[in-house]
Order: sequence, then structure tokens, then C-alpha cells
Amino acid sequence: MNYSLIFKLIGNVLRIEALFMLFPLAVSFIYGGGEHWAFLWSILILAIAGTLLAMLKPKDKNFRTRDAFVVAGVSWFLFSLFGALPFYFSGHFNSFIDCIFESVSGFTTTGATILNDVEILPKGIIFWRSFSHWIGGMGVLMFIMAVIPSINASSINLLRAESTGPSPDKIVPKIRETARIMYLIYLAMTVLLIVLLRIAGLPIFDSIINAFSTAGTGGFSNMNASVAAYNNVAAEIMITVFMFLFGINFSLYFFILGGKFAKFIKDIELKVYFGVVIVSILIITVNISGIYGGIAEGLRHSSFQVSSVISTTGFSTTDFNLWPTLSKVILVFLMVTGCSAGSTGGGVKLIRFIILFKAAGIELGKIFHPGSVKAVSVNGKKVDNDVVSKTALFFFIYFAVFFASVVLISIEGKDIVSSTTAVIASLSNIGPGLGIVGPAGNFAAFSPFSKVVFSFCMIAGRLEFFPVLVLFTPSVWKKSLIK
Amino acid sequence: MNYSLIFKLIGNVLRIEALFMLFPLAVSFIYGGGEHWAFLWSILILAIAGTLLAMLKPKDKNFRTRDAFVVAGVSWFLFSLFGALPFYFSGHFNSFIDCIFESVSGFTTTGATILNDVEILPKGIIFWRSFSHWIGGMGVLMFIMAVIPSINASSINLLRAESTGPSPDKIVPKIRETARIMYLIYLAMTVLLIVLLRIAGLPIFDSIINAFSTAGTGGFSNMNASVAAYNNVAAEIMITVFMFLFGINFSLYFFILGGKFAKFIKDIELKVYFGVVIVSILIITVNISGIYGGIAEGLRHSSFQVSSVISTTGFSTTDFNLWPTLSKVILVFLMVTGCSAGSTGGGVKLIRFIILFKAAGIELGKIFHPGSVKAVSVNGKKVDNDVVSKTALFFFIYFAVFFASVVLISIEGKDIVSSTTAVIASLSNIGPGLGIVGPAGNFAAFSPFSKVVFSFCMIAGRLEFFPVLVLFTPSVWKKSLIK
Repeated sequence: MNYSLIFKLIGNVLRIEALFMLFPLAVSFIYGGGEHWAFLWSILILAIAGTLLAMLKPKDKNFRTRDAFVVAGVSWFLFSLFGALPFYFSGHFNSFIDCIFESVSGFTTTGATILNDVEILPKGIIFWRSFSHWIGGMGVLMFIMAVIPSINASSINLLRAESTGPSPDKIVPKIRETARIMYLIYLAMTVLLIVLLRIAGLPIFDSIINAFSTAGTGGFSNMNASVAAYNNVAAEIMITVFMFLFGINFSLYFFILGGKFAKFIKDIELKVYFGVVIVSILIITVNISGIYGGIAEGLRHSSFQVSSVISTTGFSTTDFNLWPTLSKVILVFLMVTGCSAGSTGGGVKLIRFIILFKAAGIELGKIFHPGSVKAVSVNGKKVDNDVVSKTALFFFIYFAVFFASVVLISIEGKDIVSSTTAVIASLSNIGPGLGIVGPAGNFAAFSPFSKVVFSFCMIAGRLEFFPVLVLFTPSVWKKSLIK
Repeated sequence: MNYSLIFKLIGNVLRIEALFMLFPLAVSFIYGGGEHWAFLWSILILAIAGTLLAMLKPKDKNFRTRDAFVVAGVSWFLFSLFGALPFYFSGHFNSFIDCIFESVSGFTTTGATILNDVEILPKGIIFWRSFSHWIGGMGVLMFIMAVIPSINASSINLLRAESTGPSPDKIVPKIRETARIMYLIYLAMTVLLIVLLRIAGLPIFDSIINAFSTAGTGGFSNMNASVAAYNNVAAEIMITVFMFLFGINFSLYFFILGGKFAKFIKDIELKVYFGVVIVSILIITVNISGIYGGIAEGLRHSSFQVSSVISTTGFSTTDFNLWPTLSKVILVFLMVTGCSAGSTGGGVKLIRFIILFKAAGIELGKIFHPGSVKAVSVNGKKVDNDVVSKTALFFFIYFAVFFASVVLISIEGKDIVSSTTAVIASLSNIGPGLGIVGPAGNFAAFSPFSKVVFSFCMIAGRLEFFPVLVLFTPSVWKKSLIK
């Protein structure tokens, strides 16, 4: 392992985090909530730690795949840890574990909270929570790639380790250019949503908060009742549409910018995403309309919740925990599937299901044509067998981590529905689940141990397991690999 | 497709079923319950239908993989359908759907029932329920292979389509010999258990019933309270041990007969099976002892229930639905894993988990050694990449069928825990789940539609999906393939 290069990079990550904290610091000063000290101290600590690490002078310039995965894994843990400092210094949280949970939940765009009342928080803290969604959505390392010169050719692995989906790749030859384009699209869409929410009648601060949480598909709100608090249909529609849009692969927006509309609308994952959303909305609308006294209200809540859950945002306009089993079951499965690869959303990702369904079909076909060597293809391009088996294994690992986590969470003996859906909500970076972690509840009642498990699940899910699992392999700590 | 050969074989399957029914017919006469007419009519119908089909004279002697899968799929549906006739004619069931559910549950060794009271049933019907477990456990086609001369070399595919596990194979060169050895081991173990239960003090009829249900890892009881009704610790220990033993790959018993003890104890799946059982028993014992007033009673119930659930038998000595979440969660996961390939048990099978964990480890290792071509090996033998990807896909298909079934079951709006665990209990051929389908409950309250879905799940799970999914591919019904 090239540790000096790894930690030099991580030092830069921490310095970037210090810069990011200038925004909530400014908000603190503007609104005068008195929490600016919390940010000033945090910035100081980050700047010192970051600068010390960044001063390392690696002799070895080689940056291997394994180094990239370790950078990704460690960065996310440290970023979340230091990101918890402002919460801790603010004095509004019960314990440091709670602060870490909230910070991890922010950066991983989960949006699960351990707070019973968010409305009493000072504006700077509220801003930092939602801003962390925005930062984590597109990725911390992606940002680094966009602003600092590339290390070398294999730094593409950094992007791969942090991006979502089975085979993330550059959209333009240069990595730095790719990262910049992604961030610009992301920024433009976020600004557009802020403007639209303002037009819909939300206060400017609320517009920014909700736009950040939507863009990162996070779900932290500045209101205890989430989006329901505004009872503003126009704003709900905007957020419904944008949650859906941020669940789309950003490469596709790049195609639109390049005028390649055909490539956009013919994308199989987009079609499936759209289809699943429409079918889910229709079924749930029929299923819940009775509760809301009509199709119109049923459609309003079902479309908002489906968009919120499949994009793994986690905003709510109503308590879907009270819906009939059919609707709840569909939502839980959308939590597992998640949205598109290369989006800011979480979950297993639809493209993986597409690949696996096709592979299963081919396997079935082999019974008829034993010698067949048919391969899975997506959007007219053959998918490597290697990618197919990695995809199938990803699905298995998701289940294995789910199982292990549910067992650990069950130790404290909360009911089975709350325990299992809380793990799914963490692994897929949604936020709310069912039972006590439903839209009307939160994660406050869990033990510190369980909160650590949930935090681990959130980071493991966000990084799609491998960069986190790598940290637990003895190979990383083998002497022979340490230079 | 070679339809005339397919239906000729199925005709033989039905004639064998008529022969099997002579046993419950004899029981009916012995105990004089008056249900002999139900069996006589069923035998007549089976004999006519079977003989008509067996009279087919196929010109084409080719028996391809696809033909074997279709035979397996269709046989199991028809066997279950005709097996429901005695239930229907007996007049003790509410509807024909209920009879089919009970019959499918019997042959697939699930042991889920739609009856609220089994103790009022005549002895012949009770015998047929448990005997169907015994027949289905080792396999209907396996029996055919043992008694009628092989069709040709590719009839190994029949055995593959019906046996459980990722790559079932002959233990001796001749298929017929393999099938005979398997059935003899099976019969010997069953007889041994009958004797032991009799010694433990159970009445002879109860000993036979419980031995059949244990051997097939089925779980139908002649008592409403299942094994708890006897409150006989010796019998419970026998059944606990034998449920475990019937969850072991039968090929391993063949090794023992051949004196190859090393091959037996070194088997990785057996080691994992043993390890999972011990660890689960320990955790659950600690978790539940408080409820039962002591470690001894806790151990008694936890060991019985763990053995019952992992072997997918489904007998119970207590209502584990009332246990703490941790214990329930472990049991539900054991329902998914199931026991060993090549046993009479259901579920995904431990060997598949072993293969997938190893494959995931290798995938993780590739981050350190990108060019590595390390392969998964089991018991010192390399596992084909093809088998590994098929295994991963199996896991995905299990989940996909689970998802689709849960959605269908949820339409009627039973609670989420009952609906999901009822589907797992059906797919893995356990019997009881949690909630209303817990050990103290049954499947009676579900709608006829849901019962059909459960029946489908039981057969799909028993045949490990492919022989059933094949029936739904258009290829089977393509004209070009029909000769």
C-alpha cells in the first residue's frame, strides 16, 4: 500500500471539508444563531489535521487500485467523523455517537435522524446537515478530482470506488473534465430547483435546504413534518419531479447537453426506472385512495412517496407506515432496488436488476440450447461476464451485510419490522423505514451500539461495499504491502 | 420437445402414485375410518390416467435436457393435483383449492396446513399427508429411476432437475444404482427413527407419522400442537437429531457406508451446517432462557426449533412467534439458508452460501491483485465459473420470486410480517413462519388466490426454480420444438 500518498490525499480531503464548512459558518453569521463557534473550531481542527497530512511527501508515485479503494473507504469515515464536530460543539446533540450518526446520515445522503425536534436547531446547523447531503450526493472525491490536478491515470479508480453502479466510467477522456462536467450539471440542477421552490412560495432558506436535500437524494428537512409541513402542492410537485430527476444517471444529462436525445430516451435503465415508478404509483394510488378520500389526494401522496423512496431521498408528505400492506411492501422493495447507477441515489440500482434478469433468462435458455454462449447486453453493448458475476455477487453481499446487521440490531430487541426496515433504510441510504423508523419516527430510540451499526451500513451502502470491505481485509495491513 | 416420451414418463409417475396410495388405503381398512372410498376412487382415476399416458409410443428416443426439466416440472404439478383427490373425496376439506394446497405442501415437504384441526381427520388421511412428505423428500422421479430401467444416458438430467443443490451428480456410475442406494439409505434411516420413537414411548401410528414427516423434512403432524403434544423429551431429542441428520447430503452417508469417514467429516458443507446449528442454538438459548425459566428448558426448545427450521421440517415444541426479535430473526434467516444440497430439506442450501462467500472473497482479492484468476474451490475441488454464476443467479431468482409472491400475497392485506414470512416458509418448504402463520397458526385465513400463489412457491422452491420457470418460457410451447 502506498500509505504516504493515501494519507496525503486524505489530508486534501479534510482541507476541502474545512472549505465546505465556510458556507454554514456564513449562514451562522447571517442568522446570528450563535453556533459560529462550533464551525470555527471544526474548521481549525480540520485545517490543522488536513494540512499535516497533506505535507506528506510520497516517494512512490504509484497509485494502484487498492490504494484508491482505501482512500475512498478511509476518506468517507474521516469526512463523516470530522463532519460531526460542528454538531458536537453546537451542544444540540445528546452524545458524540449521535453526532456521528447524523453526520454519516448526511454525507451518505441517507437522511435518517436521531433528533426528535429539528426545528429548534440554529440555522447554521440545519444548513450543514442538508449541505452534507449535497456534498455526499455527487461525492467528495469527485469534487477533489474536479478541483485538483489528477495524480495519474489510475486515479480513475478513485472515481470508480466512489461512484455508484456496476461499471462507472469516464464520460470524456479526461477524468478531471468528467468530474467537472458532473459537478456543473449537478450545481445547475440544484440552483434551478432553489429558484423553482422560491417561486412556489417557500422561504429562501427553506428553498435552499430542500434543494440540497433533494439534489443529494438525502432527505434531511428543516421541518419536523418534512415536506408535509408546507402543505404546498406546487412545491411538492417540484420536489417529486426533481427527486426523480436526481435518481437518473448523470451521464445521460451529458448526452442531452451534447444533443444526443436518442441515447437519452433509449437508455434501458431510464426506461425501467420510469416504468417502475409509473406502475408503483398506479398500484399504490388505487391501494391508498380510500384513506385519503379520493384519487387526487391518493395520487398526490403516492407519487411523492414513490419518487422519494425509489430515489432514496426519504422526504415525506404523509406517514406511509399507516398504509395497507401492499403499498408498504412495494415501498420496501423500492428501497432495495433504488434508482439508477451514476445518480446521487442509493440502493442496489436498477441496472443491476436488469443485468441479473437478463442473465437469469440466458441461464434458463441454456436448458433449451445447452451449448449456447449468449451474453448479457445492455443498450446494445455486450456486458463482460466479469461484470455480470460481480453484479450477482454485489446482490449477495448486499444480502449478507443486511443479514449480519439485522442480527446485530436485533440484540436490543426492537420489533422485527422496525429492525429490518431500519437496516434496509440505512444500507440503501433512504432514511425512513417502517415501524418506529417510519416517516413519523426517527432513529433516536436505538442504542449507541445500534447507531454505530447503522452508521457502518450507511457508509458501506453508499460506497457499494467494496471500498469499506477492503478496509477489513488483512491484506491492507500486511507488512509486505506497506511501503 | 419430445412430448410423447415426456407424457409416457408422466404416465408412469401417475401409476406409481396409484401404487403409493395403496398404503393409506391399507391404513384406512386397518383403522376403519371409512375413508377407504376416497383412496379407491383416487387410485382408479390415477390408474386410468396413468395407463392411458403410459401407452404412448414415442418414435423419437432422444431425451434432452429440456425434456427432463419439463418432465420434472409437469410431474410435480400433476402429482400434487392427483394427490389432492383423497383429501377432496374424504369431505374433510373446505374446497378443492385447500386440498391442492395441502397436497402440494405434503409432496414439497413444506408441512404448511390450511386445517385448523388435524386431530379429527381419519387415520388414512393423516397417513397420506405424512407419507406424501416421505415420497416428496427423496423425490418422485428418483423413485421412478430406482424402479424402472433408465431411458438413456441423459436421464441423469431428470435426477438433476429434481435433486437439490448447485451441481447434483451420480454417486455411482449407474443412475439406477445411485437412485436405489439413496432410497435404501433413506428407508433405513426412516425405519430406525420409527423404532426409536416407539421405544421413546410414542404409539406405533404416531411413530410412523412423525418418522415420515421427519425423514422428508416435512412437518405435518397428527397432533394440533405438533411434537409439543407428546411432552416427551426422549422423542424430542430423537426428532431433533434426525431432523438434523435428514438435512445432510445423502451422498455423505454413502461415503460412510463405503468406510470413507474422512470424506464425511471433512465435507465443508457439513462443517458449516454443524457450525451454524451450534452457534444458532447457543445464541437463541441465551436469548430465550428467561422465558422458559432456565437454561435447560431454553436449550431444549432452541435446539429443537433450530434443527426444525434449518432442516426446513417445521415441527414445533413451542411457539417461537413469541420469542424475542433476535431469535426470530435468526430463525427467519435459517429458513432462507436451509440445510445441505442433496438432502431432503429445502431453502437456498448452505453450499450455495459457501460458494458465494468464497466468490465474494476472491472478488475482493482482485482489488489487491487485479490480474488474479483464482477460482472458487469446494472440498479441494475447483468449482466451475459456470456453477458459480449459476449459484449467484439462483440467489437472485430466489429473491425475485420472493418479491413477486410477496406483492401478490399482500393484495389481500394481511400484516407485513405474516405475508413475507409465509412466502419464505413456502419457498423454502418450511411450513410455519411468523405472525398468523407462526407455529400456533396456519394458512387457513388466506384467500384462495393467495393459496394458489403459496402452492406455486412451494413447488418452485422444491424444484429450485428452473424446472418450473421452464414451463413458463414460450420456447416449451414453440411449434418448431414439438415433434
